[in-house]
Amino acid sequence: MLTYDFQKAEGPMYAYVYQCIKEDIIKGNLQPGEKLPSKRTFAHNNGISTITIQNAYDQLISEGYVYTLPKRGYYVAKIEGIRRLPKEAGISLDIHVPEEKENYWADLSNNHMNPDNFPFSVWAKLSRETISKKSSELMEVSPTGGTFELRQAIAEHLKSFRGMLVDPNQIVIGAGTEYLYGVLIQLLGYDKNYCIENPGYQKLAKIYQQHQITCSYGDMDEEGIMPKALEKSKAQIAHICPTHHFPTGITMPASRRYEILAWANEKEGRYIIEDDYDSEFRLSGKPIPTLFGIDACEKVIYMNTFSKSLSPTIRISYMILPAHLANEFYRRLSFYACTVSNFEQYTLAEFIHQGYFEKHINRMRLYYTRQRRQLMDIIKKSPLGEKCEILPNHSGLHFLIKLDTGCSDRKVIERLKKKGIRISSVGEYYVSPNENSRHLFIVNYSNIDMDQMEKVCEEIFQSISEK
Amino acid sequence: MLTYDFQKAEGPMYAYVYQCIKEDIIKGNLQPGEKLPSKRTFAHNNGISTITIQNAYDQLISEGYVYTLPKRGYYVAKIEGIRRLPKEAGISLDIHVPEEKENYWADLSNNHMNPDNFPFSVWAKLSRETISKKSSELMEVSPTGGTFELRQAIAEHLKSFRGMLVDPNQIVIGAGTEYLYGVLIQLLGYDKNYCIENPGYQKLAKIYQQHQITCSYGDMDEEGIMPKALEKSKAQIAHICPTHHFPTGITMPASRRYEILAWANEKEGRYIIEDDYDSEFRLSGKPIPTLFGIDACEKVIYMNTFSKSLSPTIRISYMILPAHLANEFYRRLSFYACTVSNFEQYTLAEFIHQGYFEKHINRMRLYYTRQRRQLMDIIKKSPLGEKCEILPNHSGLHFLIKLDTGCSDRKVIERLKKKGIRISSVGEYYVSPNENSRHLFIVNYSNIDMDQMEKVCEEIFQSISEK
Repeated sequence: MLTYDFQKAEGPMYAYVYQCIKEDIIKGNLQPGEKLPSKRTFAHNNGISTITIQNAYDQLISEGYVYTLPKRGYYVAKIEGIRRLPKEAGISLDIHVPEEKENYWADLSNNHMNPDNFPFSVWAKLSRETISKKSSELMEVSPTGGTFELRQAIAEHLKSFRGMLVDPNQIVIGAGTEYLYGVLIQLLGYDKNYCIENPGYQKLAKIYQQHQITCSYGDMDEEGIMPKALEKSKAQIAHICPTHHFPTGITMPASRRYEILAWANEKEGRYIIEDDYDSEFRLSGKPIPTLFGIDACEKVIYMNTFSKSLSPTIRISYMILPAHLANEFYRRLSFYACTVSNFEQYTLAEFIHQGYFEKHINRMRLYYTRQRRQLMDIIKKSPLGEKCEILPNHSGLHFLIKLDTGCSDRKVIERLKKKGIRISSVGEYYVSPNENSRHLFIVNYSNIDMDQMEKVCEEIFQSISEK
Repeated sequence: MLTYDFQKAEGPMYAYVYQCIKEDIIKGNLQPGEKLPSKRTFAHNNGISTITIQNAYDQLISEGYVYTLPKRGYYVAKIEGIRRLPKEAGISLDIHVPEEKENYWADLSNNHMNPDNFPFSVWAKLSRETISKKSSELMEVSPTGGTFELRQAIAEHLKSFRGMLVDPNQIVIGAGTEYLYGVLIQLLGYDKNYCIENPGYQKLAKIYQQHQITCSYGDMDEEGIMPKALEKSKAQIAHICPTHHFPTGITMPASRRYEILAWANEKEGRYIIEDDYDSEFRLSGKPIPTLFGIDACEKVIYMNTFSKSLSPTIRISYMILPAHLANEFYRRLSFYACTVSNFEQYTLAEFIHQGYFEKHINRMRLYYTRQRRQLMDIIKKSPLGEKCEILPNHSGLHFLIKLDTGCSDRKVIERLKKKGIRISSVGEYYVSPNENSRHLFIVNYSNIDMDQMEKVCEEIFQSISEK
């Protein structure tokens, strides 16, 4: 006879009865094939209602711990598998989460935006309007490539801002460029060799490696990745940042662009991924035209993101596929759901369409121009001014300085780290040690506190002067 | 001498001058090494300002079409590559976008939610509050696995709703389960063999195939995937839906669960992916406990989504990793950015935390229970009632009917398609034709118009009765 202490029950009684019987079955106190007491007897003996026992038995049946034979009653099921499992639980909860960012009071190493620059009030207004006016569109599953409204808004923006002529159906929206790289790998092939720039954005190599992709490095000269290096790499795909290379800041000149296009055009299956991550922030003149724009052979896949231009915490990026790849995308990959929420797709579409995005970019360009000038002035006036050269660069959210020091770059970085200042050297972005990058450091100015910069310059000066 | 028709200029004059010179260089009208007129001469001869010419030349220099020699002037750069490109543009804009859903007046084949059920006003309120109160958190880059607030809210929900004890750090948030499958493949390995259920959710096979993964099919019996089939498949990973299998509706009984766990535990590197996509919608009794909950050997990866419980257009899913896999995830993959926007992560966290999610689910369960009962009543009272058997099923957003007909399933589907009714057969979810599934059809009731159902039953009856 089952006897449980019903005083111990917390929550509904049926759940308690269910739990007790289940545990007895798991522990083997109740054996396979054993008959359970009838609902009535069980309920009567314990002074609880038959319904309670019925519910408990029903739950046990639905989970398969108990079975019932018509007109004969309830029996314990055979759960053989459990005997083949180890008795001692092997579950650990010892999880090592990577540390939150270390404590630096000044950080020149990241190009995140300053949160104060996010257009909160406009975004809030457009979100509100989207929710109240678009309720039916919001619930309609977006096509794989994204909602037509957002793709159209992006196409319009690219036309007026970058002089690019793009069919909205060539655009694929995704939750971040990292996600889109994964889609591209599926589209172009796991068996291809992808060539990335050396030096270059380190995450790319990691992403390709984690996808088990053969990834090679193409050396750069002062015009960008070298066609010779591409040839040597045996790569089919060149993944490059021609508008504004990170970290060198190089803008690939026209001559090199045509050479790279010619390379792609020489063999079937060759493509160029043009990563245009911060092209909005060219601080003077017209934006540099894209490789995509001068490609007449369907060889360039263009990628861009709203992470730099709006916020990294709104995960919206896009790629533009040449028509034949767009067709292959629809043929093979259109079963995928779009990874960006409709709510934000429609909000962003309105943000672009109503002209707020252009205004925002113009405002940010002024802001960055000012930041840059102020910071350069501070450096020049500080003791560091005599000990460093600021390299010319007309774009983006960072510039390079060449320090006049006898210390190794690592030493400089370590010394500054001890003082709570974070800075990266260009050398860190090379695959192997490189002489040309010696003493070159990256100064990101997108999210710095200008009031601290005099002190920062002082500390850098100290660090490079110490023996 | 350069002569252009300056009357034709649209937009800024410098851009026009730039464009004209660039075109002449590309076309070869201006030869590499050719000297351009001095700014002053060019400006004077054409009656435009020197600054305009200066700006045009600067843009040409920054793009690399022109170079300058100090004190000597401006020269046309060599763009050799362009001669290696074909003269005729090969760009096509002929893109074949898959058709929008075909025109059915009644669709029993999809389990999307009814848009009217989305809690718009609460969601709008919480979005508003998030934007106004969390501006600094919204701008802070979320950890790879998602914001702690959302992971904590999910852990709390799972504890009270599913009896699962989960450390928030085991949870990884992503923009949809399809995206998370891709992350899992990177975590578990491209070289593994993944076994999916036959019959089963068709998209899974497509996803594995597009990732170039060896994917095998494990046959099911009435208790779910068979351990024998798993053994035979040589798979290391079993990807299954034990709570409520689609399309059969099978809930895996305890005995089978322990057998599958024992299978996983027999060899190192074996894992079970538990896809719990609609577990919230068990219409009676307690929710079925998860496999993850009874796993004492760190063999189960649990996955769930808010697509079914909230809306498919809000792209938020999550997976729960056993501790050792969580550690490997952090070690190898934590460089990835989280794919879900902070705005929606914080909104959803509050939605769960403030109890709205539980209320919403309870409301939806009542709604689905009513829909289901009404639809069953309509079927039973219609002429179809005599010609079909409704299979018992206590969960989810669909049930199965077995039609009493001499027609093939395909014939039935085609006849109904012609009448504007969409329905799927269970047979479609098998890899190869299967006798057991004959005449079994899927009736999704999550988003149907009940007023049409009498007519739908009538039409199905007609279709199966015709010769």
